[in-house]
Amino acid sequence: MSGNGIGVLFRLTSFGESHGPALGGVVEGCPAGLPLSEADLQVDLDRRRPGQNRFTTGRREPDLVRILSGVFEGVTTGTPIGLMIENTDQRSRDYSEIKELFRPGHADYVYWRKHGIRDYRGGGRASARETALRVAGGAIARKLLATAGVTIRAALIAMGEARIDREKWDWDEVARNPFFSPDAEAVGRFTALLDGVRAAGDSVGAMVEVVASGVGVGWGEPVFDRLDADLAKALMSINAVKGVEIGSGMEMARGRGSQLADEMFPGEDGGVDFASNHAGGILGGMSTGQEIVARLALKPTSSIRIPKRTVDVVGRAREVVTEGRHDPCVGIRAVPVAEAMVALTLADHWLRFRSRAGLSLH
Amino acid sequence: MSGNGIGVLFRLTSFGESHGPALGGVVEGCPAGLPLSEADLQVDLDRRRPGQNRFTTGRREPDLVRILSGVFEGVTTGTPIGLMIENTDQRSRDYSEIKELFRPGHADYVYWRKHGIRDYRGGGRASARETALRVAGGAIARKLLATAGVTIRAALIAMGEARIDREKWDWDEVARNPFFSPDAEAVGRFTALLDGVRAAGDSVGAMVEVVASGVGVGWGEPVFDRLDADLAKALMSINAVKGVEIGSGMEMARGRGSQLADEMFPGEDGGVDFASNHAGGILGGMSTGQEIVARLALKPTSSIRIPKRTVDVVGRAREVVTEGRHDPCVGIRAVPVAEAMVALTLADHWLRFRSRAGLSLH
Amino acid sequence: MSGNGIGVLFRLTSFGESHGPALGGVVEGCPAGLPLSEADLQVDLDRRRPGQNRFTTGRREPDLVRILSGVFEGVTTGTPIGLMIENTDQRSRDYSEIKELFRPGHADYVYWRKHGIRDYRGGGRASARETALRVAGGAIARKLLATAGVTIRAALIAMGEARIDREKWDWDEVARNPFFSPDAEAVGRFTALLDGVRAAGDSVGAMVEVVASGVGVGWGEPVFDRLDADLAKALMSINAVKGVEIGSGMEMARGRGSQLADEMFPGEDGGVDFASNHAGGILGGMSTGQEIVARLALKPTSSIRIPKRTVDVVGRAREVVTEGRHDPCVGIRAVPVAEAMVALTLADHWLRFRSRAGLSLH
Amino acid sequence: MSGNGIGVLFRLTSFGESHGPALGGVVEGCPAGLPLSEADLQVDLDRRRPGQNRFTTGRREPDLVRILSGVFEGVTTGTPIGLMIENTDQRSRDYSEIKELFRPGHADYVYWRKHGIRDYRGGGRASARETALRVAGGAIARKLLATAGVTIRAALIAMGEARIDREKWDWDEVARNPFFSPDAEAVGRFTALLDGVRAAGDSVGAMVEVVASGVGVGWGEPVFDRLDADLAKALMSINAVKGVEIGSGMEMARGRGSQLADEMFPGEDGGVDFASNHAGGILGGMSTGQEIVARLALKPTSSIRIPKRTVDVVGRAREVVTEGRHDPCVGIRAVPVAEAMVALTLADHWLRFRSRAGLSLH
Repeated sequence: MSGNGIGVLFRLTSFGESHGPALGGVVEGCPAGLPLSEADLQVDLDRRRPGQNRFTTGRREPDLVRILSGVFEGVTTGTPIGLMIENTDQRSRDYSEIKELFRPGHADYVYWRKHGIRDYRGGGRASARETALRVAGGAIARKLLATAGVTIRAALIAMGEARIDREKWDWDEVARNPFFSPDAEAVGRFTALLDGVRAAGDSVGAMVEVVASGVGVGWGEPVFDRLDADLAKALMSINAVKGVEIGSGMEMARGRGSQLADEMFPGEDGGVDFASNHAGGILGGMSTGQEIVARLALKPTSSIRIPKRTVDVVGRAREVVTEGRHDPCVGIRAVPVAEAMVALTLADHWLRFRSRAGLSLH
Repeated sequence: MSGNGIGVLFRLTSFGESHGPALGGVVEGCPAGLPLSEADLQVDLDRRRPGQNRFTTGRREPDLVRILSGVFEGVTTGTPIGLMIENTDQRSRDYSEIKELFRPGHADYVYWRKHGIRDYRGGGRASARETALRVAGGAIARKLLATAGVTIRAALIAMGEARIDREKWDWDEVARNPFFSPDAEAVGRFTALLDGVRAAGDSVGAMVEVVASGVGVGWGEPVFDRLDADLAKALMSINAVKGVEIGSGMEMARGRGSQLADEMFPGEDGGVDFASNHAGGILGGMSTGQEIVARLALKPTSSIRIPKRTVDVVGRAREVVTEGRHDPCVGIRAVPVAEAMVALTLADHWLRFRSRAGLSLH
Repeated sequence: MSGNGIGVLFRLTSFGESHGPALGGVVEGCPAGLPLSEADLQVDLDRRRPGQNRFTTGRREPDLVRILSGVFEGVTTGTPIGLMIENTDQRSRDYSEIKELFRPGHADYVYWRKHGIRDYRGGGRASARETALRVAGGAIARKLLATAGVTIRAALIAMGEARIDREKWDWDEVARNPFFSPDAEAVGRFTALLDGVRAAGDSVGAMVEVVASGVGVGWGEPVFDRLDADLAKALMSINAVKGVEIGSGMEMARGRGSQLADEMFPGEDGGVDFASNHAGGILGGMSTGQEIVARLALKPTSSIRIPKRTVDVVGRAREVVTEGRHDPCVGIRAVPVAEAMVALTLADHWLRFRSRAGLSLH
Repeated sequence: MSGNGIGVLFRLTSFGESHGPALGGVVEGCPAGLPLSEADLQVDLDRRRPGQNRFTTGRREPDLVRILSGVFEGVTTGTPIGLMIENTDQRSRDYSEIKELFRPGHADYVYWRKHGIRDYRGGGRASARETALRVAGGAIARKLLATAGVTIRAALIAMGEARIDREKWDWDEVARNPFFSPDAEAVGRFTALLDGVRAAGDSVGAMVEVVASGVGVGWGEPVFDRLDADLAKALMSINAVKGVEIGSGMEMARGRGSQLADEMFPGEDGGVDFASNHAGGILGGMSTGQEIVARLALKPTSSIRIPKRTVDVVGRAREVVTEGRHDPCVGIRAVPVAEAMVALTLADHWLRFRSRAGLSLH
């Protein structure tokens, strides 16, 4: 309850700074009997890993995750799963400048004001590096959810003013390009845009869409732990996210009820079919059985080479230029992170749902 | 932790269905010594109350709140504050139709599938009536925060395609019109739009903006209980909300870092001034001392008089028309509810902040 | 998380002072479909109710509980169950003395120091009257657990130096005497003792034993939410309780491992039988399938007619005599309260157990 | 909330099995600015460490703790503190026997029934080795509490039928003997008893007393998160603990109110003095400012060389003898663990207390 954990039954608690000895965490609540190895987690970590192409930070961290507990002879035992990723690329550098400056748009100032001290090396706890642990935990959640038939996928749908064509959406394409774009034709547009941004020493924002398929009906706990509310929290907690929407989202503010209610029909299997999915798979805070669709908006990182005015720790006016290894579009690597946060949220709500499912009380 | 409570130290737990005996709840964690009376809560409840003009449901509930505990001789005692609002307008009517039908866009279907039973009268627990209790709890949070110099205000900024002119923003105007519009000139546009929508038996979505002033620096608990993450959860948990954004929000996905970082300057009082507030008063999940700005998108209610296709409890194809007393724009009455949710979130984070503030440990 | 709620999935949150308008609370997490009426709760409330014989306080409260939500057409709906018990016997009296005095052994002083204000009427929130709500919530838990085959019973096993003969234990006897004694012959001893204590204006302590039968194997969440740890918390949270033990409890500190390990044998049904139950049905924090046995020690109430030295709110030395309606042995009425706390704890752990039970993950 | 964490604001979450790669955990909520090094934690770990004399298990683990995050330039930063203790003495041995047997009095059977799988090596998660992490976390809590003037000490007060003479209590003596006995003369009795127990291949129970001095008035959150209730949970969660009592504890069940109420007097400093401390420093669930006194009873370990009847995983009757390195009295090494659990509980309640302290609301 002190801020570094998320989830009630399936719960990830994390620790670690960008340039400290290690990142790590604990995954509680994973049921026993799930086959699990470090390789299972590494797949997702590798998707998030920086230094793989010119569009992400040059920092080269192998991001090798170790499982320290909770797995025995290749399967989970029901006890907490300890995770650790050592920080190996703690490049020795001179922090004397950044140590005294608050970078605009960064958490430097608030950490310093809140705590009176901050680990200024590489952003400390506020570094996007922290999300590696989310991805590791999310990979466990994802594997657990797979046993329930749930698949979670995300894609980059816009970068700055460039956007994909939804008609050309192909999930298989996502793994083939460095942008996680589901539209092969948009890759050229993203490339051109990002090369320009990099050349200018600037950064650019992005939109990510996450889709979860195979979720059963009724996951979510109204009225406060609604599934959409918990997804909003989980996604908004990712660095640089400034907006979250479900289904048709913000657009629904402009629409009419007669257009946006998802009509229902008798389904093949005695269930229900929906004519559309403006609701994004969630009604009244609970899953409808349709695909769950969430989108998140990420701001452009403030780590740019264009000078900005700021102040230092003793209150003097200063100018800052953020040199060094920074992603010009943090939205790209947010794609696997968003998947992880949705996986963690759904795994938790699946267990919460199961706790009361299948009872016959009278 | 079971879904009907929100907050860690300042916590509201609520209960109640639309047509049950009463709504109620418990506010825990309010410090002792705060002057508090039922009249303090009634002010906000009256702002949310339906039946006050032709733009909201005709249901007439006095929504009189009773304080059942936690207040003695006019001030809080530090013990939990019990709240109750009796449901007086349980209009006797024939529910035989709605009892068997799932209204598209409503929670009917998921409640029934999750629980195998539902209180179909007036939407049961999924009724917007549930938000009355949030407003009551929020009024306590608001009064507590006022002692810390925090003010929370919200306004309707768009309805369907009509929107306010931000240049004409006047907080005093909000209380003068039935739309909570901060722009007097927009009132005519909203009126025309909503009269058309009502005449058509339709409904319309809306956007609400909440602004909190006077919040100190450093409230919020990274990395998961970030202030923005908790605000996103609190606001997304309101009925009909489908999107939440902080500061420049979704727009930041389209922008450049060079435009969107809020530059900093030495402030008058030895503090820091910001050149802009794209961040919406939150960096790294913690308050910066600037105004906190959040926006929420509400979908048009699905309770419309235009026929929609649906199914019934035995799986037959049916058509449904929702007659009766319904707000054509639920976004309007969401304004005081949004204020309440922000107040509850900030009160909780203020106490969490205080728990470690002012210590000298070496 | 702010102190007035207990349980993770099955959770009771309570409010209310002895002489305020009402006691009340919220039971979250009760699955849908459980037949439930106010009469179901009243049975247990009537067992706890004061004024039924000369051995309990003369305060006469009908303690009528109202269910305000969560039940529809006689069964639970899965939504939170609001509960309220109005305080009807708020006898008008002169509190001018007690208002300024701290009664030794009471919470008066700490409430005043913690909060700077206290509701001194009848003990306020610290009154044993608060336990009525626990009994109401516990009755719901008990009814839920009955569907899982779990029975929870408690009895008074000692009062001061008088104790029952365990050889004469008869559960049916418990309901037949005013002491909840399972030993008919002990009733005379308890009567004589308590009459003497009352005549002397004094009070006396007691021991209560709670037994839960029918609990499955594996309920409990090591290492901190062990079933025994959660039972200890639940029972120690009852007013006047100063000690809690499980199984052979404190006695085990004096024993040898060779005597106290419960040997195991192949059971009739392919399961396991135990030769003894020193463990009290819990090993490693999880239920073994045996009877769960817990005992609690209650101190004699400090509300006695024998003068005691104390101080008043302005720090002067004073003498206090507690006149009025007080139980000379609060341990008696703690019997149904202890059952309720065990029921609440087990219901919560049953749901937590169910969340991961029956999965096949590979 | 999934069982491996304890505390609301100051929170320890732990992971790790006896023979897995490592034990570890996360301490959340430690305020920034506390000087902290691995050496600070090692002091307490060394007190708990096995293999230091003939009365504890021969397992030799250096139990070196690493701090992985949350400390920068020698002081805490307010971010979570990651901890890790590698398991170095994973002696290669043959587990084929124990793998199939359930040791009576051990958690083997319940882990297997709950999860369908268990890490049988050295007790897995149920090993007392898990408590090393508690001690590491507790050392941080202890250091934090020291800044508030709080001291926490524990001692062994009884082993089997041997007990200390309270008149000879000397806190300085505790560090001088291998039993943590506060009575130098009792050391001979404990030695003789334990040598006999060891020679017989048996084990023996013990009683531990913990005393916290310097706690302010009003820590604790009634009615469920009472300080005594949270202490009971924390202490009962320690392996082998079967009973917990506060102040005069179980004895109070035998006494009279006229003897057991702690009378109050005007104190020197305008405060209050108490004539006695039967309450153990807690009234109404909140600290009184007196010493907090708790006692815990530990059962004799079931790991003995005397044969016991049991069953195996396929349900056959078997006999088991636990060879190997086991403490004949686990109560001894529970002394620093008990201190740690009290420290963790008090640190949490101190922060919770601080969240609402010092406010002026009208």
